[in-house]
Amino acid sequence: MNAWINGRNSTRIDYRDRGLQYGDGVFETMRVRRGQVRLVEYHLERLYAGCRQLKIAGPSLLALRRELVRIAALRSEGVLKLIVTRGSGRRGYRPTGRERCTRIIALHALPKTVLTDGPTPVRVRLCATPLGLNPRLAGLKTLNRLESVVARAEWQDARIWEGLMLDVDENIVCGTMSNLFLRSGSSLMTPVLDRCGVAGVMRRWILETAGDLRLNPVERRIRWQDLSEAEEVFMSNAVVGLRSVGVIERGRERLRHSAFETANRLRKRLDLL
Amino acid sequence: MNAWINGRNSTRIDYRDRGLQYGDGVFETMRVRRGQVRLVEYHLERLYAGCRQLKIAGPSLLALRRELVRIAALRSEGVLKLIVTRGSGRRGYRPTGRERCTRIIALHALPKTVLTDGPTPVRVRLCATPLGLNPRLAGLKTLNRLESVVARAEWQDARIWEGLMLDVDENIVCGTMSNLFLRSGSSLMTPVLDRCGVAGVMRRWILETAGDLRLNPVERRIRWQDLSEAEEVFMSNAVVGLRSVGVIERGRERLRHSAFETANRLRKRLDLL
Repeated sequence: MNAWINGRNSTRIDYRDRGLQYGDGVFETMRVRRGQVRLVEYHLERLYAGCRQLKIAGPSLLALRRELVRIAALRSEGVLKLIVTRGSGRRGYRPTGRERCTRIIALHALPKTVLTDGPTPVRVRLCATPLGLNPRLAGLKTLNRLESVVARAEWQDARIWEGLMLDVDENIVCGTMSNLFLRSGSSLMTPVLDRCGVAGVMRRWILETAGDLRLNPVERRIRWQDLSEAEEVFMSNAVVGLRSVGVIERGRERLRHSAFETANRLRKRLDLL
Repeated sequence: MNAWINGRNSTRIDYRDRGLQYGDGVFETMRVRRGQVRLVEYHLERLYAGCRQLKIAGPSLLALRRELVRIAALRSEGVLKLIVTRGSGRRGYRPTGRERCTRIIALHALPKTVLTDGPTPVRVRLCATPLGLNPRLAGLKTLNRLESVVARAEWQDARIWEGLMLDVDENIVCGTMSNLFLRSGSSLMTPVLDRCGVAGVMRRWILETAGDLRLNPVERRIRWQDLSEAEEVFMSNAVVGLRSVGVIERGRERLRHSAFETANRLRKRLDLL
């Protein structure tokens, strides 16, 4: 069994857990490489930032990090998912402040395509499902992920790797499971996530690494027009790393990109981690 | 044990259930009176409307109604909670369409205050946590309830019964667990829920019953100004029915209302159900 609930090998949680009842929790999906969790400190920082924002008393940081390290070592390559919920409580939305959090850790095999497909540019499409404006929860990776589910259910075509999501004002915010980057000259742009969207750890790593590649990182509102004017477009995700975007579909319209050097350079640096 | 999962007496669900992983499901909280589920058809209609919107293949309607009736009969007065999730799936947001839904039914005691406090006007406050704009999920009672949790965590004062929530444009939308009504003359107003909020079954019953009381129901945008101009304000919820609002707090400001006749008349009709 590859799942641990509060440290015990198990696959069962109490139906009263607020993670199920209300989506009252946060999660991280991490890449295991050579038996280690990539960017583990970034994942832990975001997890605890989410707990603080939701006033969830999270697990002990040192014990949690130890547990992640120990479990990651069970596989050379894999995907490690961590969920922290507020735990079980009484009926009703109100947290009493006395709940004990539930932590769920699951270790999965790495999808084979992650190792083989990295440098191949992907096709993405524009989704019709908008991301709701939600300044209070923006950037966090909470268990309230229905918008991503509904957006991801929009297409079946396996050749399309990802869907781009707009906010209700038609700004492009992120993919269903990834963040978006546009390069024009030495400017590296990514949507600002102050109103909705998830601030990925790979996005953070890219923004922090951009300077080393003489790129100037900018967070701002991104429109469809910006995608067509960009010289290079790519997407990021903690598990897959970076994927260059070759084609963007909006209905029958196609935007094509053929510059991939920034994503390739970043991917090489990422491989060194 | 007062919980049934897929028809079996149990309190444990699989951690891979998409209800936990993503909040991928819907729920109903129902009032049991004299061993029967009040407004059961309205609850079932909303539940299946939510399933349709999320493309969840729900349980058989006839079997589910039979199960609710059978379980409700175990208590004279109570609260019956029904959760339907998309069920367990593979990793990733995408539903395959082959998931088998999970249904969770739990029967709880009725909080004593529900029977004793009905006619007493309540104090409510304005919450700082906004409701995100989300036209695609507006009106549905999905398992993505973090906004309600965060709003409900804003206050500890037990004398405050409910918090009113604004959308990001400062329209008043609903309470954390209830819907809002304002009466002026024969006009009965309630916030329109096309962009966010949950469309309660008690709200529906009130809108459908208003005509019998020679009230003219109107769904529209409601502002703070409307609350101060209204002759009467009350809130509704499937479990408690209707509660008149006596005081509304916004910071140090207090709005006071002393007309309760519409809520009282509606409550009398509701008691006949």
